Amino acid sequence: MSEPSDIRAQAETWLTAFDSALGARRIEGVTSLFDADCFWRDLVAFTWNVKTLEGRDEIAAMLRANLDATRPSAWRIEGDPVKADGVLQAWIRFETKHARGRGVLRLKGDRAWTLLTTLDELKGFEERKAGKRAKGIAHGVYKRDKTWSEAKRAEEAALGAEKQPYCVIIGGGQGGIALGARLKQLDVPTIILEKNERAGDSWRNRYRSLVLHDPVWYDHLPYIPFPDNWPVFAPKDKIGDWLEMYAKVMELNYWASTECLRAAYDERAEEWTIDVRREGRPLRLKSKQLVFATGAYGPPREVPLHGIEAFEGECYHSSQYSTGEPYEGKSCIVVGANSSGHDIAADLCEYGAKVTMLQRSPTTVVRSDSLMELGFAPLYSEEAVRAGIDTNTADLIFAATPFRVMPRQQIPIYQEIRKRDAAFYKRLAKSGFRVDFGEDESGLAMKAWRTGSGYYIDVGASDLIASGAIAIRSGVEIQRVNARSVELTDGAELPADLIVMATGFQSMNRALAPIISEEVADKVGKCWGLGSGVAGDPGPWEGEPRNMWRPTQQPGLWFHGGNLHLSRHFSQFLALQLKARMEGLDTPVYGLQPVHHKS
Amino acid sequence: MSEPSDIRAQAETWLTAFDSALGARRIEGVTSLFDADCFWRDLVAFTWNVKTLEGRDEIAAMLRANLDATRPSAWRIEGDPVKADGVLQAWIRFETKHARGRGVLRLKGDRAWTLLTTLDELKGFEERKAGKRAKGIAHGVYKRDKTWSEAKRAEEAALGAEKQPYCVIIGGGQGGIALGARLKQLDVPTIILEKNERAGDSWRNRYRSLVLHDPVWYDHLPYIPFPDNWPVFAPKDKIGDWLEMYAKVMELNYWASTECLRAAYDERAEEWTIDVRREGRPLRLKSKQLVFATGAYGPPREVPLHGIEAFEGECYHSSQYSTGEPYEGKSCIVVGANSSGHDIAADLCEYGAKVTMLQRSPTTVVRSDSLMELGFAPLYSEEAVRAGIDTNTADLIFAATPFRVMPRQQIPIYQEIRKRDAAFYKRLAKSGFRVDFGEDESGLAMKAWRTGSGYYIDVGASDLIASGAIAIRSGVEIQRVNARSVELTDGAELPADLIVMATGFQSMNRALAPIISEEVADKVGKCWGLGSGVAGDPGPWEGEPRNMWRPTQQPGLWFHGGNLHLSRHFSQFLALQLKARMEGLDTPVYGLQPVHHKS
Repeated sequence: MSEPSDIRAQAETWLTAFDSALGARRIEGVTSLFDADCFWRDLVAFTWNVKTLEGRDEIAAMLRANLDATRPSAWRIEGDPVKADGVLQAWIRFETKHARGRGVLRLKGDRAWTLLTTLDELKGFEERKAGKRAKGIAHGVYKRDKTWSEAKRAEEAALGAEKQPYCVIIGGGQGGIALGARLKQLDVPTIILEKNERAGDSWRNRYRSLVLHDPVWYDHLPYIPFPDNWPVFAPKDKIGDWLEMYAKVMELNYWASTECLRAAYDERAEEWTIDVRREGRPLRLKSKQLVFATGAYGPPREVPLHGIEAFEGECYHSSQYSTGEPYEGKSCIVVGANSSGHDIAADLCEYGAKVTMLQRSPTTVVRSDSLMELGFAPLYSEEAVRAGIDTNTADLIFAATPFRVMPRQQIPIYQEIRKRDAAFYKRLAKSGFRVDFGEDESGLAMKAWRTGSGYYIDVGASDLIASGAIAIRSGVEIQRVNARSVELTDGAELPADLIVMATGFQSMNRALAPIISEEVADKVGKCWGLGSGVAGDPGPWEGEPRNMWRPTQQPGLWFHGGNLHLSRHFSQFLALQLKARMEGLDTPVYGLQPVHHKS
Repeated sequence: MSEPSDIRAQAETWLTAFDSALGARRIEGVTSLFDADCFWRDLVAFTWNVKTLEGRDEIAAMLRANLDATRPSAWRIEGDPVKADGVLQAWIRFETKHARGRGVLRLKGDRAWTLLTTLDELKGFEERKAGKRAKGIAHGVYKRDKTWSEAKRAEEAALGAEKQPYCVIIGGGQGGIALGARLKQLDVPTIILEKNERAGDSWRNRYRSLVLHDPVWYDHLPYIPFPDNWPVFAPKDKIGDWLEMYAKVMELNYWASTECLRAAYDERAEEWTIDVRREGRPLRLKSKQLVFATGAYGPPREVPLHGIEAFEGECYHSSQYSTGEPYEGKSCIVVGANSSGHDIAADLCEYGAKVTMLQRSPTTVVRSDSLMELGFAPLYSEEAVRAGIDTNTADLIFAATPFRVMPRQQIPIYQEIRKRDAAFYKRLAKSGFRVDFGEDESGLAMKAWRTGSGYYIDVGASDLIASGAIAIRSGVEIQRVNARSVELTDGAELPADLIVMATGFQSMNRALAPIISEEVADKVGKCWGLGSGVAGDPGPWEGEPRNMWRPTQQPGLWFHGGNLHLSRHFSQFLALQLKARMEGLDTPVYGLQPVHHKS
């Protein structure tokens, strides 16, 4: 082990050289400070994009394009750098022409292995919080026009009528709400459109037994973290109530019972015209920016079923499933063996249905306890909180690892999990259920990033499968549907009163088609996925989730979404991009991604 | 300056001797560790009471009565003790038979000057938070009867019908809500009765321009602090919305639109019978405990006005005031020159009314900025937060100073304020407004503790008075009221379209009379006040606010209330007292206060 002062000196030396090369615009001087195997991930600070530059050449190209406009300065180490396994990690702060930033530097020897730079706040447009919070009353000035509540009501009445929003967000789940909260704090006039009656209904309307599979430390929203008495895994309705409260106290312009019918972009005026139906009444909005925050997925993926027209039972997509209550004693087929398939099969089983799950391809299954301990605990756990790793710190440490490097770090976790839970996997295999850990054995998190599917965090269904309470048929699909049964591709016939298609969802860009056009959905291309080349995530390698939280091929159009973690962290970067544009700051986008896949 | 290690050793030495004397039940050994001028303030840990013992004899008497039952142990220093102005301050932790406690020790030399002991949690009944939080789902057990929302609805339907609450709280403002939240976390079945339609209405229904006079750092509720973007001084409706959200996400059994009509205690059954009207329907509840959380005050103090029956204008108490809007150009008399009087006079003035304030006796006025900096900042400010003083720490440091000592510490603050704001006070005096700082010059906070009135934190009205925009008549009262004017005791006559009586409120115990009985209101006696002997707070000295958060002369009856700070901090001690009784723990109350004043 090196001494703390040596570690700090090493980090300081690197940062001083980096600062000086950047200041002198000596791009080769900059790249010579990086290892040959190097990554610079930038979240909006240098590239006005979400971008990982891999290798010295990509770094040099980015700097040639954007260094002059960025004008970075004031680099400094924050807190105490640490060293483990030969890698030095230091927190850094810096400034650019328009912003203040925060980052994470990782050195191998005296060269940088990874660098993360993130935009933290825009100069002159800092949020009014903590020491800069609003006073709330103008002391000594009593000629106020309006009280807080009168001003709020007036703003609500005006926005979308005599005053048009700068930004419209379609979708008022955690994505729309977290982004809306950030934009509110940045004074960006915004309307959130939500088709359901109340904020939180996107959770309440899901199936009865749904409980979050991610733990509380991973799920906080910005500004108001869950309280200490919040359960580790929150039931869906509790999350629903929290979101409803949050939208209210954060004073969002949240239009519930509002459907977005059409949106069209005027390229000349650089403006959207958006037709909505609000509580039954048609209304036209104008906005400069339009954000789709309609979840992590697009429309349901419908799989054609031969003979379905003659089926006398019920058949619907998993997104329509509510409760197993009507199915006691009934024969139920669940097609698909990922998260929803497991939850629904278990819920049906709980109500006394006879359930068969059809597993079309292997699933990455991990016991919740094991994933919490080995996957989440270093950053998102009570231990992490006690070690001083708050949510923002955890998010940045997580973001500091480039996607190219992530699989190598994940593989040992799953080696340990397989060893630790060998008996569990053995029982599961005996039932006929097929488990995998991804083509490169990198496990659950990489499956989520690459394809958004193919996994289940076990909170109980696996035991039901292992014990036979849920029957499993693996490697088969439905060949045809009869009046009261299904025939499988292996020739077997199963009685069927209910078929639930837990077959997943299309890409998020397909949600554009009915609202904007098929052309724009194609022009923008597929959302999510990294281009890793595994099944479900075809190449070429793109290095960042496609289209998320950053400029797309369609000006004025943005995607925001994902789980609570991503909705929390990336709402920061999307909100700052929108604010910068509203204020007319220079925002040269580096490396706008070409489109390789339409869906 | 002593070295940190010396300071720690000094604290350790004292605590070891204290522990050993307590353990050996050598009461004289204990008291010999205290200075002759000494105080032991106990919040429920030793006395099952809120009690300050002054001097060695009172300490010895308490220990003789309660030491055997308390069985204190495991005393230890927490964190680093500090020394300033010859006083060493150390954080301590300890245990008793039933509980874990936290405290603050202050040594002068090698003897204790003040000791604070507080009850933190009951053994075996710890709150399920942080590392002990509920998991939220029973992994692997799928035979759940009810989901979270179904269980919640069922509990709400049952409580007060087939299942009676252990505790009923009358009043759903910040007091009832904060206490309700603590009781919920402690699994004490509780119903909160609130006459208004929605949680938060107790704030919303106040006058239009009301803004909190206390800063945000002082105002947090338990469990969910205000977010960083909360203004320093929150407008009343924003607080109202927060309370409504809070009651919901903390899952309180909050009965809005519910009036408490009658309550009677059955001494034999040790049970209350409580008649309520809930949304118009009569209903009878039973409970073991009844808490009045009806605010810091009782009913309005009505001052008889000679000739009022002939008055052709409007006349009402300040609690009925809503807005100055109808009074443009009208002649308005505000009787009273404390907080409400100032706020109402300023609001009327803002709407163009001709306002005269009648100041009956001098007022302690302090500019908000000065009070924030000199009064609040050491414990409740952004600087304090940055120095690591969280809300709970600040509350305990504040509670560590006995009321007997507090005036000496307050006097220098007001000396500094008078110096700093000399020009302000000079202008105010020139208008005829009379300022005082209390009989012993101890200022605003002591006035609040002693009488709950007689002060104004200036947020603008003083300038309106100094400039003459609000006329002031000092040292006078209304002699009689005519049809359109008032005659003052100095013979002057003023035109009057509106008379607002900002004449304060009766003691909280008077609120018992219409619900329980005059007899019980008298038996319990006056709430608040310390017995300091100044005007409005007659002796004898009692040393703690009367009747608040602790057993009263009426079994099963409790008072809870005060500003947000007191509602937050003391709800902890009241909730733990109720929980201990529900669980049948031994709770020997030491020093139940005799009643010296009926109102």
